[in-house]
Amino acid sequence: MAQSGKRVLISAPGKVILFGEHAVVHKKLAVAASLGLRTYLHLEENETGQCRLHLPDVDIDLTWLLSDLSLSIDLKTLETGHPMDIPEEIKQQLENWMGVTTREAQRQAVLAFLYLFFVLKTDKPTSFGFSINTRSTLPVGAGLGSSASFATCIATALLVLFNHIPTGFAQSEKKDSYLDTINRYAYKAEQVIHGNPSGLDNSVCVFGGALSFRRGEGFVPLEGFQSLQLLLTNTKVPRSTSALVAGVTAKKEKYPNVIDPILDSIDKISLRCCEAFKSDSKADLAQELEDLVDINHCLLHALGVSHSSLEKVRTITGEYGVKTKLTGAGGGGCALSIIRDDVNVETTNSVAQKLAGEGFDCYRTSLGGTGVNAVILIDDSLDQAWLINADRETLEAHAI
Amino acid sequence: MAQSGKRVLISAPGKVILFGEHAVVHKKLAVAASLGLRTYLHLEENETGQCRLHLPDVDIDLTWLLSDLSLSIDLKTLETGHPMDIPEEIKQQLENWMGVTTREAQRQAVLAFLYLFFVLKTDKPTSFGFSINTRSTLPVGAGLGSSASFATCIATALLVLFNHIPTGFAQSEKKDSYLDTINRYAYKAEQVIHGNPSGLDNSVCVFGGALSFRRGEGFVPLEGFQSLQLLLTNTKVPRSTSALVAGVTAKKEKYPNVIDPILDSIDKISLRCCEAFKSDSKADLAQELEDLVDINHCLLHALGVSHSSLEKVRTITGEYGVKTKLTGAGGGGCALSIIRDDVNVETTNSVAQKLAGEGFDCYRTSLGGTGVNAVILIDDSLDQAWLINADRETLEAHAI
Repeated sequence: MAQSGKRVLISAPGKVILFGEHAVVHKKLAVAASLGLRTYLHLEENETGQCRLHLPDVDIDLTWLLSDLSLSIDLKTLETGHPMDIPEEIKQQLENWMGVTTREAQRQAVLAFLYLFFVLKTDKPTSFGFSINTRSTLPVGAGLGSSASFATCIATALLVLFNHIPTGFAQSEKKDSYLDTINRYAYKAEQVIHGNPSGLDNSVCVFGGALSFRRGEGFVPLEGFQSLQLLLTNTKVPRSTSALVAGVTAKKEKYPNVIDPILDSIDKISLRCCEAFKSDSKADLAQELEDLVDINHCLLHALGVSHSSLEKVRTITGEYGVKTKLTGAGGGGCALSIIRDDVNVETTNSVAQKLAGEGFDCYRTSLGGTGVNAVILIDDSLDQAWLINADRETLEAHAI
Repeated sequence: MAQSGKRVLISAPGKVILFGEHAVVHKKLAVAASLGLRTYLHLEENETGQCRLHLPDVDIDLTWLLSDLSLSIDLKTLETGHPMDIPEEIKQQLENWMGVTTREAQRQAVLAFLYLFFVLKTDKPTSFGFSINTRSTLPVGAGLGSSASFATCIATALLVLFNHIPTGFAQSEKKDSYLDTINRYAYKAEQVIHGNPSGLDNSVCVFGGALSFRRGEGFVPLEGFQSLQLLLTNTKVPRSTSALVAGVTAKKEKYPNVIDPILDSIDKISLRCCEAFKSDSKADLAQELEDLVDINHCLLHALGVSHSSLEKVRTITGEYGVKTKLTGAGGGGCALSIIRDDVNVETTNSVAQKLAGEGFDCYRTSLGGTGVNAVILIDDSLDQAWLINADRETLEAHAI
């Protein structure tokens, strides 16, 4: 049973697709890596008999009486299928607890939490209560894995809370097995949120580092992967991932002989990236990644998924010799720029300022953040208010 | 023998590469077409015993006594090899007549003229003289075939002057044979100017219309080719074609698995273009050409031969829904934009104004101009001064 007063800071990184977005839909190799930007979850066990879910990033603050949270069917018995292949009456019962959340992102987040709660809960005393607070340094809906990072934190929190895995899972000898468990439930949460995600995002958020991925063949960690400095630029231009994916498919159907070799080229870019990390020279690695970033962006542009905002980011960074590609679905969203070790801070600041001047949000971060982690909080001052107010450096210092 | 007082207006179109530049070096298919923009040559036979070569576009105005123009070896006997594989002493004699021309473009133009003069001249009375004036509406050195167009006009003028072909060659039953002759000598002039040209440029200038070309396989006229409106933008950014070609080759050597499929894709774009012209619907044709223009540019950008000026042209035209690609070597130079039939004049004017505001030169013209042509001038007022001063519309009206 849970020890009384458990207080844990859980965190999981966001992810970025380095190479292969869109091509991955057509069975080409993609490479994704975790980010220094993370989602933080403050879990506190208490004796209120209540459950509080506080997600300030998406304006959610819901509290339920735990004695009220029951379903007519035990969800554990339905765990094997797709989370949303549950009877309509159960869906209706879940909906009833979702309160006045109206935005789709809110509904999905709450639904994912409730689903995992019912799948993972174990018997507890009547007084048992808990609160979950999350905060993310990741922009929401920008293709940087904010939902997978959230899903990973929520799954970890509920697995720890209901004693399926120990709080110190990341330091355990059975770490690999615990991470697999977390990944399985994080994927379920992603399925609630996205329908049919590839599983790439949650895998990166759980395991950290970098992974290559081909549909139907699963994930392979990148051998020799090493951290790199990045500048991420969120154009904040909204876009529909499904429409962009459909656009590429339509182009491939109209011009198969033209588009197929472009997708092949992207496949080889991902492959070359995997090989480049095995190289001994960091300068060579950076040079090759820059070349590949530049070529991959142009090929994505050829597929029709760039956007004037992304081209503007490329123009501005290009003036400083910094190579940039769109990352994720494109059509707006985020761009990633490789910051070589020999680029000085003044240059990076100038680029970031110029991008900010165009109304874009810039994030200086690194590639290859640690996977999901949990730290037992001892200092009483590290409470929920602290989580909400702490700056990124403070959070990073406490979480990893 | 030449009839006394022969006065002829000869003209030949410029050319634009529609698809396949750079890839053509690696044996991929390219498509080129003639332009509405032309080079005009005013040929006048007189009794001065002199030869005047007036090329105001490259600041050349040279006059020789024809009795002075003789070589120690008859160049006709050396006609089969490369024009510049002639003995050093002959080269030196040619050099001696070139006057104070110092710029390379000037030297090449005069050398090409002198070479063809010696290869094509026939016996004439002592009083025989002639003058050649040329003027081009094509920008020089912008990849629009200004040299091939000049070479075609000069070859035609000397062939007509020395009665190797009739002035009315273009209306003759033996037109095909005459055009082949012109093309053979135009290619020689191009060899003098460029060393080892592919022969694509002069072929387009001589035959007009559109041709597909694969190195080692020669030229095929495009079936069903039809004229299209174009906007050509000269960024006026100077570049080295050979350095750009070498850059692509280096990239292909460093990343063969990535670059080869990009070149394959470009090959298929050219092929698709050839197929598209066979289509019955002009709307479908324009749509496909726009798609292909957009994709081909992005692939050229991936090969590293775009330039910020070209991207700016694409940004500006893109704001008006007009599709643009670089044409020729890239790295600056010219961009071509497809102007669909349903684009109104105001839009095209706005685009052109905005481009001019950035310091670019814009040319509204059509694709698929008539090949080389010659018109006997009857009106005495259509003299050399007229040629120099006439506007483009007047020249076009008299030349074709």
